[in-house]
Amino acid sequence: MAGNTFGNLFRLTTYGESHGPAIGGVLDGCPAGMSITEEFIQHELDRRRPGQSALTTPRDEKDRIELLSGIFEGKTSGTPIGFLIRNSDQRSGDYDQMKDVYRPGHADQVWDQKFGFRDHRGGGRSSARETASRVVGGAFAKIFLNEFNVSIEAYVSSVKDIVLEIPYTQLDLSLTDKSAVRCPDGKTAESMQRVIENARDAGDSVGGVITCVCKNVSAGLGEPVFDKLHAVLAHAMLSINATKGFEMDGGFDSTTLFGSENNKIKSGISGGISNGSDIVFRVAFKPVSTISKPQQTINNQGQEVVLEAKGRHDPCVLPRAVPIVEAMAALVFADFLLLTKSNRLA
Amino acid sequence: MAGNTFGNLFRLTTYGESHGPAIGGVLDGCPAGMSITEEFIQHELDRRRPGQSALTTPRDEKDRIELLSGIFEGKTSGTPIGFLIRNSDQRSGDYDQMKDVYRPGHADQVWDQKFGFRDHRGGGRSSARETASRVVGGAFAKIFLNEFNVSIEAYVSSVKDIVLEIPYTQLDLSLTDKSAVRCPDGKTAESMQRVIENARDAGDSVGGVITCVCKNVSAGLGEPVFDKLHAVLAHAMLSINATKGFEMDGGFDSTTLFGSENNKIKSGISGGISNGSDIVFRVAFKPVSTISKPQQTINNQGQEVVLEAKGRHDPCVLPRAVPIVEAMAALVFADFLLLTKSNRLA
Amino acid sequence: MAGNTFGNLFRLTTYGESHGPAIGGVLDGCPAGMSITEEFIQHELDRRRPGQSALTTPRDEKDRIELLSGIFEGKTSGTPIGFLIRNSDQRSGDYDQMKDVYRPGHADQVWDQKFGFRDHRGGGRSSARETASRVVGGAFAKIFLNEFNVSIEAYVSSVKDIVLEIPYTQLDLSLTDKSAVRCPDGKTAESMQRVIENARDAGDSVGGVITCVCKNVSAGLGEPVFDKLHAVLAHAMLSINATKGFEMDGGFDSTTLFGSENNKIKSGISGGISNGSDIVFRVAFKPVSTISKPQQTINNQGQEVVLEAKGRHDPCVLPRAVPIVEAMAALVFADFLLLTKSNRLA
Amino acid sequence: MAGNTFGNLFRLTTYGESHGPAIGGVLDGCPAGMSITEEFIQHELDRRRPGQSALTTPRDEKDRIELLSGIFEGKTSGTPIGFLIRNSDQRSGDYDQMKDVYRPGHADQVWDQKFGFRDHRGGGRSSARETASRVVGGAFAKIFLNEFNVSIEAYVSSVKDIVLEIPYTQLDLSLTDKSAVRCPDGKTAESMQRVIENARDAGDSVGGVITCVCKNVSAGLGEPVFDKLHAVLAHAMLSINATKGFEMDGGFDSTTLFGSENNKIKSGISGGISNGSDIVFRVAFKPVSTISKPQQTINNQGQEVVLEAKGRHDPCVLPRAVPIVEAMAALVFADFLLLTKSNRLA
Repeated sequence: MAGNTFGNLFRLTTYGESHGPAIGGVLDGCPAGMSITEEFIQHELDRRRPGQSALTTPRDEKDRIELLSGIFEGKTSGTPIGFLIRNSDQRSGDYDQMKDVYRPGHADQVWDQKFGFRDHRGGGRSSARETASRVVGGAFAKIFLNEFNVSIEAYVSSVKDIVLEIPYTQLDLSLTDKSAVRCPDGKTAESMQRVIENARDAGDSVGGVITCVCKNVSAGLGEPVFDKLHAVLAHAMLSINATKGFEMDGGFDSTTLFGSENNKIKSGISGGISNGSDIVFRVAFKPVSTISKPQQTINNQGQEVVLEAKGRHDPCVLPRAVPIVEAMAALVFADFLLLTKSNRLA
Repeated sequence: MAGNTFGNLFRLTTYGESHGPAIGGVLDGCPAGMSITEEFIQHELDRRRPGQSALTTPRDEKDRIELLSGIFEGKTSGTPIGFLIRNSDQRSGDYDQMKDVYRPGHADQVWDQKFGFRDHRGGGRSSARETASRVVGGAFAKIFLNEFNVSIEAYVSSVKDIVLEIPYTQLDLSLTDKSAVRCPDGKTAESMQRVIENARDAGDSVGGVITCVCKNVSAGLGEPVFDKLHAVLAHAMLSINATKGFEMDGGFDSTTLFGSENNKIKSGISGGISNGSDIVFRVAFKPVSTISKPQQTINNQGQEVVLEAKGRHDPCVLPRAVPIVEAMAALVFADFLLLTKSNRLA
Repeated sequence: MAGNTFGNLFRLTTYGESHGPAIGGVLDGCPAGMSITEEFIQHELDRRRPGQSALTTPRDEKDRIELLSGIFEGKTSGTPIGFLIRNSDQRSGDYDQMKDVYRPGHADQVWDQKFGFRDHRGGGRSSARETASRVVGGAFAKIFLNEFNVSIEAYVSSVKDIVLEIPYTQLDLSLTDKSAVRCPDGKTAESMQRVIENARDAGDSVGGVITCVCKNVSAGLGEPVFDKLHAVLAHAMLSINATKGFEMDGGFDSTTLFGSENNKIKSGISGGISNGSDIVFRVAFKPVSTISKPQQTINNQGQEVVLEAKGRHDPCVLPRAVPIVEAMAALVFADFLLLTKSNRLA
Repeated sequence: MAGNTFGNLFRLTTYGESHGPAIGGVLDGCPAGMSITEEFIQHELDRRRPGQSALTTPRDEKDRIELLSGIFEGKTSGTPIGFLIRNSDQRSGDYDQMKDVYRPGHADQVWDQKFGFRDHRGGGRSSARETASRVVGGAFAKIFLNEFNVSIEAYVSSVKDIVLEIPYTQLDLSLTDKSAVRCPDGKTAESMQRVIENARDAGDSVGGVITCVCKNVSAGLGEPVFDKLHAVLAHAMLSINATKGFEMDGGFDSTTLFGSENNKIKSGISGGISNGSDIVFRVAFKPVSTISKPQQTINNQGQEVVLEAKGRHDPCVLPRAVPIVEAMAALVFADFLLLTKSNRLA
């Protein structure tokens, strides 16, 4: 209810602030009998970790997964999976200057409005660090989906004005993780990388779009009215920090077509329910708000001040957001797969 | 769980197929003591009703609201509000031809896949007729929000390639309902109307975008992690039939800006939580799938057939979708307003 | 959330006051493909109806079920089942005297405290009339359970100090509905009937115990921690009006045994999970509060007054509560049967 | 859904097996601004801990609470409170003999039936050790309730056939924790202690009843239909291991009274809603199943075997269950206090 739980049957609850002792979560409803290797969970976590390349923040968040329950002799036992990731390398001193200052584009001020006070250290609960717990939950969801041959592959399809124009059907998505920007087309990846480096050097940031391709999703997932499959996917995606938009199939572009044209475009979702075809959606990420350039803002007394962010921050979050998009999509599909078991008598 | 309930504390459950005896719903959690006039509920319903102008389907769905409980001496009593709307003018004969045919762009085939069989008459539960129940729930939400001076005003901002370029701050949104297309700018409205009429005459359909402007939303609504305010709004909007995308603030366009530029744009939501500024979002509607032009499709034997839809169908659903967008937004804000009461000790 | 919904996957939402236009509900999550006969639903409703015998209130609540959605060509379609029962024979004049008086043992005063005002006509939402909607939901649950051969049979096992001492294994439970008091043993039934008639003649009321026997419940229902099967059954039973206690197996009596003795008693639930053996529980009903004898009470000004209830009231609710106990048990088992489908990978 | 979460707005999710690395939980929805001292949480945990007296198991489960999030500068911050308790002194070797044996009265066999296999070490998730996490959640709830002067005091009111006959109004409940059996009347406590010691010496176990007295509960808590206050309390209580019954007010005894008699008994709950008077309920605990006497049982091949439990087990769980009963009651009241904020417009 307070928004720290996602999913109904396959259900992830997360907790933790960026500068407290740990972040973590509880994954409930994971079916019994799934073979789990900690290596795979850790691998997914590593894909999200900062410091993977020159493009991301050099913070060394080791992000070691610690599994606390729900697994017995290498298999899920049907009981809730508790896990945590200790916070390290906190340097919360970097954030002392922000105690009384509201950073532009951040949630600092609304936390004071909503809760009466806030943990000012690095965003607290609003920090993107929270998404590490989602990646853990998503890793379990991927293991579950693997039993049904569902694959979920996201990649960076634009950074600022550099747009990957090649349709996904002509891309080799296994190349995505080969590039630092997580774009599967080498040439476009290079251009994107230059744009990000230039932004970083200018003390600025850039945004972009992540495309996610989901294959072999069983027909019948999604509910006809309020919980249409794409509605829940949109909910999942726009719960990721810095997102500003979601579209599927032709999205906003399809609004300029005639029905007779649009009806010819294949979609993986009909009336909110998966039909077995590929499901493709796109998520818009704004350029992140934290930049090192000096910015005008206000403090908690309402006075105008100039903020020069210290700390270490990504000039572009998209490469690290790819595994988060995949994790949230995996959680959505896993939940609907369980729910759909109750649809029919026989 | 089966997706016929929306909201947690202010919670709407709907039921009903387009060609059964009635559609309706139960609104639970509406606070006690709200003054209700049936006229306002009916007025909102009438805004959604077909047959309002030459642009919409001439079906005469009288859509009379019948309130069954939860109101005593003109006020909400704190108990669930049951309501129904009888179906009339059903002419289900129009749909007999579709019994074995899967209409392009519709959910016909996935219903067979998901449930084993389907009510083939006019879309059954997938029919947009279901949204009448949402408008009823939304009308109660609007009455509740009125106590907090929250206003929600949606309008058609593009139809096919006709785009209203004037920003909402320079529009008189009280004019929206004056035009048949529900575009508050007279000149643009005329152009939109022509595009829709041309599509209708060609037996085709057109889509577009609805913009929704929400003012005086109290600061503090939305939850920091999974239930960010815009994530839940996106969920709500993409649960409306024929939607393909959602964006807030700059949306997909903001992905081409630098952070230093984007930080200057005012947003009504920070970190997923309302901050008191105007909240503006846009919803993409595809051109509806049902057109009278002959179309290639398949039947439930997998054979290719040509479908010529009879029945009466809107060439453009956007004008009638305006009150639905408002209703869903109202339900979201009402739910968070109740939820937010539990945020603080004092 | 506001307590008008029961169940997670097999989920009943009810609405309606005793003296408004109708009561009714929405049953969501009922699997597609179940054959439904309106006769069975009506039969279950008739078992709960007043005026069945000299022992119950002579009010003629016709209680005709009206099914509004979710059924197509005689089968559940997987969509929500909306239904209603019109209120008739309201004579709300009988209740005018109670407008300002708080009846002893009733919820009158707390409604004013909780919601600020109340519908004073016959208990409004707190009236036992609401349970008719539960019986409808329970009838669908019984049809579903029938596919798994689950049987649920409740009977009156004590009225005041008349106790049926014969264990259920030696009773013919098919005889329950043959007696006006719904006790399957003829001799005990006669004694119970005399006790009730005497109470009625004295303008008083009596309570008792209902025993419920559930056979062929599949092993594996119930969740190990918070949603133990008997915990949810207790929740369901104590949500019925006038209940004061719940016990399973030996119940309170088992607290006087040694573990070595108690371990020998067969139970249908182990650690909160059904194990395939018979599940037997007992529900205590207090003597109903509404009696025709004059009683001391207070009015809404806090003054002491004498109340002489008019209207027509049951001297003993137990016979009519038997189908309600069965309905609630059926809803619990149906919900867990669906939920349990998600327990295992294979 | 999978039953590891309790509550709606004040919501506890727990995880952990008795012999894994840790148990713990996440408490979501705790309002911001509550002053927290770790000492109080630890104190409540210590009340539940084994090894407190000669009457309880001598296992030294240190049970140190570790708070991971949600608290900033000594106050709740409105974000989820993650916590854990490391398991120590596991000696899982004691349980090796039980790998293939189904202990009488335990959930061993149904776990195999439900999930396909089980963690056989000491009950795994079904172990009463899980309740330590509830005590942590309950401690936060008590801190919250303290703001409203709500007090919750439970005590042991019977052990086997030793019954405390003095009504709670004549007892000094502050003496409860002074006696090893947690009975506030010294003389009765001594008798109870002898009964427990005799059972222990005989390798047997005994049960009993815990009475819980809740004072100053604000009027208006509880929902009129499915979530009546006593129904949710019953759900909460019967989710505690080894419970077999719940009753409030006169309970099963009240079924033998006339309505005119019963109406004179004061109750703290009317029609499912608290009215401000004391709320008193009783919970029946069976004698625990694990005893050291040799017992006939079956193994997972269906063969009859004799089981002699090693390990260290309580001959009577009631003294240690007192803080668990209080914790669950506190969670129920805290949840309803938050929920009730949404009942009225003004």
